[in-house]
Amino acid sequence: MKILVCALALVAGTCVAQDAGQFQPAETNVWGAEYPRIDSTGRVQIRIKAPDANKVKLNFWSGPKVDMEKQPDGFWTITTTPLVPGLHYYVINVDGADASDPGSEAFFGGSRFTSAVEIPEPGSTYYSIGNVPHGQVRDVWYESKVTGSWRHAMVYLPPDYEAQSKKRYPVLYLQHGGGEDETGWIRQGRANVILDNLIAAGEAKPMIIVMACGYARRAASAAPNRDEMMQSFEDDVTQALIPFVDKTYRTLADRDHRAMAGLSMGGFQTFQITTKHLDLFSHIGGFSGIGGMLDDRKWDLKTDFNGIFADPASFAKKVHLLYFGVGTVEPERFMTRIRSLHTALTEAGVQHVYWESPGTDHEWQTWRRNLKGFAPLLFHPAKSL
Amino acid sequence: MKILVCALALVAGTCVAQDAGQFQPAETNVWGAEYPRIDSTGRVQIRIKAPDANKVKLNFWSGPKVDMEKQPDGFWTITTTPLVPGLHYYVINVDGADASDPGSEAFFGGSRFTSAVEIPEPGSTYYSIGNVPHGQVRDVWYESKVTGSWRHAMVYLPPDYEAQSKKRYPVLYLQHGGGEDETGWIRQGRANVILDNLIAAGEAKPMIIVMACGYARRAASAAPNRDEMMQSFEDDVTQALIPFVDKTYRTLADRDHRAMAGLSMGGFQTFQITTKHLDLFSHIGGFSGIGGMLDDRKWDLKTDFNGIFADPASFAKKVHLLYFGVGTVEPERFMTRIRSLHTALTEAGVQHVYWESPGTDHEWQTWRRNLKGFAPLLFHPAKSL
Repeated sequence: MKILVCALALVAGTCVAQDAGQFQPAETNVWGAEYPRIDSTGRVQIRIKAPDANKVKLNFWSGPKVDMEKQPDGFWTITTTPLVPGLHYYVINVDGADASDPGSEAFFGGSRFTSAVEIPEPGSTYYSIGNVPHGQVRDVWYESKVTGSWRHAMVYLPPDYEAQSKKRYPVLYLQHGGGEDETGWIRQGRANVILDNLIAAGEAKPMIIVMACGYARRAASAAPNRDEMMQSFEDDVTQALIPFVDKTYRTLADRDHRAMAGLSMGGFQTFQITTKHLDLFSHIGGFSGIGGMLDDRKWDLKTDFNGIFADPASFAKKVHLLYFGVGTVEPERFMTRIRSLHTALTEAGVQHVYWESPGTDHEWQTWRRNLKGFAPLLFHPAKSL
Repeated sequence: MKILVCALALVAGTCVAQDAGQFQPAETNVWGAEYPRIDSTGRVQIRIKAPDANKVKLNFWSGPKVDMEKQPDGFWTITTTPLVPGLHYYVINVDGADASDPGSEAFFGGSRFTSAVEIPEPGSTYYSIGNVPHGQVRDVWYESKVTGSWRHAMVYLPPDYEAQSKKRYPVLYLQHGGGEDETGWIRQGRANVILDNLIAAGEAKPMIIVMACGYARRAASAAPNRDEMMQSFEDDVTQALIPFVDKTYRTLADRDHRAMAGLSMGGFQTFQITTKHLDLFSHIGGFSGIGGMLDDRKWDLKTDFNGIFADPASFAKKVHLLYFGVGTVEPERFMTRIRSLHTALTEAGVQHVYWESPGTDHEWQTWRRNLKGFAPLLFHPAKSL
C-alpha cells in the first residue's frame, strides 16, 4: 500500500531517465532508501552493512542466489543479472542468518516478513495507480464461532460504492498463497489497483473483493493437522465470513454473484471449497493452484473435485466460469499438474478458461496477470462461455 | 492489524495459564512462530538461527542490549530481564548487520521494518480487541497537487458510520512519529481498537480518525531540507488531505469539529500546523512531542507557537482543547522540554491538560495511553475546560 506513495514521492521531482546502466531506487524501497537499486534491464544492486560478517549471500526465491562482495567500508554489495518484471522476494543471509534488507519494504511471504524488489514491466500500466476513481480497502474484523476468535480480513469496495448508496454488488473471495496472509493481494498483488483500472476502463464490473486469512484453527483444537486446518478454513468461510460480508456490505447475496479464486494454496482452497458448495459459488478461479495435490495421479473427472465435472452439461449450467492458469517458467510440478487438468477437462468437454502467463514463475507477476484476465470474465455469464 | 488475529488464534485452543517462568509465544509473533516468547514477568526469550556467526546481539531500542548465546544447534538464544508493558522495537545484530527476527511481525519504525515484542499490561483491556462494535480502517489514496503524487492514508470510521447513513462526524487527524509511517497508529498503536472500546463505553464521541504519511516532498523539489519538507506536509494537510476527507466522508467540516494530534515528530507537526491554522483546528494534542525544538531556549509565550498563547483569554475562546503528555522514563531531553511548556503555560494561565504516563518510555505504550486520555476530551468543549 505504502509502496506506491513512496515510489511516486521519490521520483516525483527528479524524472531522471532510466538508461541502461543507470540505477535508480526500486519502487518497493522504504522512504528515502537508496538501495536496492534497479536499472532498465532489470539488474538489481543490493548493498547492506555487515562489517563483521564472514560471508553474505543474496538469495532470491525465484532467481539468482549469489555471494555478495565485502567493501572496505563494511558494506557488502552485489549487482545481479537481469530479472524478469515482477515482484521478487529475497533474503540476505549473513553468516547463516536470514536477514531482511533494511532498504526494502517488508512483505509477508514464506511465513515471515521478507524483502522484495519490484522490477517494472515496460508498457504495463494495469497494476499502476492511475488517475482513475479509486476504491477503498478496509481492514475489517469478523467474529468466527468456528475458530472462536476475531479474525482479520481485507475488503475492497469499488470506487462508486459510497456514491451509489442503494446499489448492490457481486463479491469475489480472493485468497493468498501458503506462507502469505490476507494482506498479500493488496500489498504484493495490488488487486485494488488492478480492479480500479479495469473498472475505469469498463472491462470489469464493479465488485467487492474479500481477502481473508487462509489459516484457521478450530476453537479448542490444540494441534490440528493440515486437513483439519483446511476444513476449519472452509467452515470459517461458509459459516462466518460470507454471513459477515453479506450482513455488512451491500452485496448481491446469491451464488450467481459470488466468486472465489486464489493463488497456489489459495487456489487449492478455492477448488476445495467451491466444489463442495456450488450452492454458494458459481465462479471459480485458480492461479498456479488448483484442487488436488501435486502428485502424479491421473485425474478422475468422475470423482475428483467432488464429481462436479462428471456431467459437463450439468456443470456448464451451474458454473458460470472456471478459470485457471500457470506461469510458463513455474516449477515443473505446478506446470505439469495444472496443464494436465486443462487437457483432461478439454478432452471431457468441460467448459473452462485456461491461460499461461509467458515467462513468469511462481511469483506475483503471474497472479497479477491472472487477476487481470479473470476479473473481466466475472459476473458476465455470457462472456465466460 | 494481523497482530491480534494471530495472537487470538494461537491462544484460542490452549488457554495455558501464564505462570511466572512459563514462556508463551508473544502476541506480536507471526502465525505459528514459537519465538519470541514472554513470561508473566515480562521477560523475553529470543531464538534465531545464525550457524556461522561470530557474534549475535539483541538490541532493544528502549531496553536491554545484550549478547546472545550460541547453542550447539546453530541457534542463538537469550532470556532478557523483565521489560515494562508495551510494544518494544528490537533488532538482532548478526556480525554487524541489523537483522529482523523472522518470528516477529514487522513494524515500520526507525525508517525500516523492524521487529517488536508486545508485553501485555496486566488488567489493561483498553487496547485489546473486544466484543464491542468495531469501526473499520480504510486504506485510501488521495491526489495531492502539493506533492504532485497520489498519497496513501489510513482512515478509521466509527462503528455506526455505515448504519447511520445521514450522520456527520468530527475528525481527528492523528500523526505517527519520525521514522514511522501512516500505518503506525493502527499496527503499533491500535488506535482503532482504543476508539472502538472508548466509543462502546460511551467515553468518547464517535469520530473519524485520519492518519496520513508525515513525509512530503513538494513536486519538482529534488532535495528538500527539513523545513521545506515540514512546510510541504503542512500544505499537503491543509490543501489536499482535509479537502479530500471532507469531500469523501460525512464529516462535520468546521474547526469546532476538527482536531489534530501526533506523537513525537507528529506532535511537532501538529503544533506547527494547528497554531498557524486555528481557522481549521480547535483541538490540539502532542504526545511526547510539542512545537519547538528540543533545545534549552526558554519559552517565549508571546511569540512562540505563532503567538497563540500571548492572550490566554483569547486562546481559551479559540482552542477547545490543548493536551500534551510525556512518559516519566523518557529521555531527559523530552521530559525537560515538555514539562517546561506545562510549567510556562500554567504560570501564564493558559488552559491545557498535561499528563505524564507512569513508567513508560518514548514508546507506543505512552502514546496509546495518551490517546486513551485525549480522545474522551475531544469534541466536548465543556469537558476540556
